[in-house]
Amino acid sequence: MRRALQLAATPGVPHGPNPRVGCVLLADDGTEVAEGFHRGAGTPHAEAAALAEAGESARGTTAVVTLEPCNHTGRTGPCAEALIAAGIRRVVHAASDQSSVATGGADRLRAAGIEVEGGLMADDARALNRAWTFAVEHGRPYVTWKFATTLDGRSAAADGTSRWVSSRAARLDTHRLRAECDTMLVGANTVVVDDPELTVRDEVDEPVARQPLRAVMGLRDLPADRRVLNDRAETVQLRTRDPREALELLHQRGRQHVFLEGGPTLAAAFLEAGLVDEVVCYVAPMLLGAGTSAVADLGITTIAEALRLHVDDVHVLQGHDGEDTNVRLTMRRH
Amino acid sequence: MRRALQLAATPGVPHGPNPRVGCVLLADDGTEVAEGFHRGAGTPHAEAAALAEAGESARGTTAVVTLEPCNHTGRTGPCAEALIAAGIRRVVHAASDQSSVATGGADRLRAAGIEVEGGLMADDARALNRAWTFAVEHGRPYVTWKFATTLDGRSAAADGTSRWVSSRAARLDTHRLRAECDTMLVGANTVVVDDPELTVRDEVDEPVARQPLRAVMGLRDLPADRRVLNDRAETVQLRTRDPREALELLHQRGRQHVFLEGGPTLAAAFLEAGLVDEVVCYVAPMLLGAGTSAVADLGITTIAEALRLHVDDVHVLQGHDGEDTNVRLTMRRH
Ligand SMILES: NC(=O)c1ccc[n+]([C@@H]2O[C@H](COP(=O)([O-])OP(=O)(O)OC[C@H]3O[C@@H](n4cnc5c(N)ncnc54)[C@H](OP(=O)(O)O)[C@@H]3O)[C@@H](O)[C@H]2O)c1
Ligand SMILES: NC(=O)c1ccc[n+]([C@@H]2O[C@H](COP(=O)([O-])OP(=O)(O)OC[C@H]3O[C@@H](n4cnc5c(N)ncnc54)[C@H](OP(=O)(O)O)[C@@H]3O)[C@@H](O)[C@H]2O)c1
Repeated sequence: MRRALQLAATPGVPHGPNPRVGCVLLADDGTEVAEGFHRGAGTPHAEAAALAEAGESARGTTAVVTLEPCNHTGRTGPCAEALIAAGIRRVVHAASDQSSVATGGADRLRAAGIEVEGGLMADDARALNRAWTFAVEHGRPYVTWKFATTLDGRSAAADGTSRWVSSRAARLDTHRLRAECDTMLVGANTVVVDDPELTVRDEVDEPVARQPLRAVMGLRDLPADRRVLNDRAETVQLRTRDPREALELLHQRGRQHVFLEGGPTLAAAFLEAGLVDEVVCYVAPMLLGAGTSAVADLGITTIAEALRLHVDDVHVLQGHDGEDTNVRLTMRRH
Repeated sequence: MRRALQLAATPGVPHGPNPRVGCVLLADDGTEVAEGFHRGAGTPHAEAAALAEAGESARGTTAVVTLEPCNHTGRTGPCAEALIAAGIRRVVHAASDQSSVATGGADRLRAAGIEVEGGLMADDARALNRAWTFAVEHGRPYVTWKFATTLDGRSAAADGTSRWVSSRAARLDTHRLRAECDTMLVGANTVVVDDPELTVRDEVDEPVARQPLRAVMGLRDLPADRRVLNDRAETVQLRTRDPREALELLHQRGRQHVFLEGGPTLAAAFLEAGLVDEVVCYVAPMLLGAGTSAVADLGITTIAEALRLHVDDVHVLQGHDGEDTNVRLTMRRH
């Protein structure tokens, strides 16, 4: 299973609407017969890839898969049927597949007389497909809200200047996180005021090949000259002020992981609606004493109502060439 | 020298007006003849302790000392004279002694024909006596300002409640840092409003044996029933609003390390005067969106004027029993 998880996590495998999956076929004596992994939507599933590699020698082997084999005909046939046809003796899988379209694979296999064991290293397998699992289980995309702040909770000085609160290392790190999501979301006012391009760029500021969807939320018409409307990536306008409705629209488009980048008004709306699942905060070691608050009013008046977060990770982004060191906190709701 | 530094840093040695010093006497073949360290004001200096241990066998040895031997008759005689009298052949020291009363030891030794070499591992030796070194070189105490904040820069909610922004682990950590200073300083308003005792307490909330001086700054008379005036520790009122004057008064009392704990008004006065040397900030993973700012107005209006800090250390204070994890940032002025 460890090898199957490694395969699933093969670097460079594009994230897409499909989960990352790895599969290893083992002979009775434990030796590996074949392996495979899913390379993204439209390509063979991990089981199919392993079966193709094994050919006739698949017969009688045990298939170790990181996800319950699917029972669904999409662009490829159901894996459960393929495993049955290939004469697999036993299937060991990690996570179960709860998605409405693909669930039922284990039952189908058992009905065909194949021994099925589930749950082995399931946590690792779920972590590998965190957003996919979340979207399947909750029927909406996973929401990561990112913000940058000074030590004293400011996102800009009193005169509005904010270049740069976060260090170059923090800004690069943000692009890395953007690339892990499939959707970037901002409020209409950020588009009007800041005119961000909202693309993912690499270390030399070149746009990367696979760009997440750009989503702008708000009722107004956007000025046509805004950079978010250029052809560097796809853009969608969500004509609503209701965070739940916005996520529903994105879910319908198969989106699983939203990277919410502000502004403060939109972030507050998601926080108040309880629709922020993860918070990534970059803290810059500087004090302003006044200026724009990094977090808008949340309707909280007393300490007992504070929105408390659970710290998952603290990462120090070391400064280079005289740049400040920034600290990244990654948190989840309690 | 490494051994001498170890000796100087012997745990349990009380901080006091004197620096921590360690001394090792080495024979010609490099074997150790004796060692000693300074145990605090009123006790023998490190060199005297080593010489006493060595007795007659001190003659002809090399004295390795973490600080330039003193040339000053205090409660003990000058170490330079003692080393000369004992027939030491050579002295190797780390940091120089720039204090007005004790400087000149190396010159005195050289005048007596003793070979003197200085500067070996001097940075380590200075770090060991950071506040002492700073006070000697700058003629005022070293100032550490501590504050606690939510992720969004608040020290209390809109209704004034703030129990607890910082976790139990962070509060315990604060007591540990208090114990490393010789003076705790707060503004008169914090005494009136919060009535803190300002003592150092251990894990079971018992006051420790050696308590730093408690200093309250402000012109007003303090209400006699305030806990800061109890007999658990010494207290001084600094009847001034000028941070420079306050530090001058504390320097005259031989104070070397001030732990500034607020309130925001006093902290802002020290920050604006450029008299904060170190900042310790506890960040709690919670959002309030409104409430009291952790840092008061500093007269900064644009990002270029931001008070920028250099991050020395980031420490994660893991939460236990459902407590939040807090993050401590230790910073210095750029
Ligand atoms: N520090 C950071 O990380 C960061 C990040 C991004 C932006 N910013 C700054 O934030 C500022 C813009 O932020 P902002 O708060 O003014 O605007 P915003 O949050 O970007 O956009 C607000 C707009 O979003 C729409 N909207 C969608 N849902 C809403 C809801 N539930 N409630 C209210 N409005 C909703 C409304 O547009 P309609 O009126 O069209 O409906 C509203 O005017 C800029 O100055 C930018 O520099 C900072
Ligand atoms: N979050 C934290 O870590 C923390 C820590 C401590 C306190 N607090 C909170 O802070 C609040 C009290 O803070 P605060 O800002 O009101 O008061 P403060 O800073 O504790 O005290 C202000 C007083 O200090 C005196 N003072 C000395 N130097 C001054 C100067 N240069 N400028 C102005 N005043 C000077 C003045 O007293 P005179 O009028 O007598 O001259 C002034 O009224 C309390 O509510 C407390 O809970 C929070």
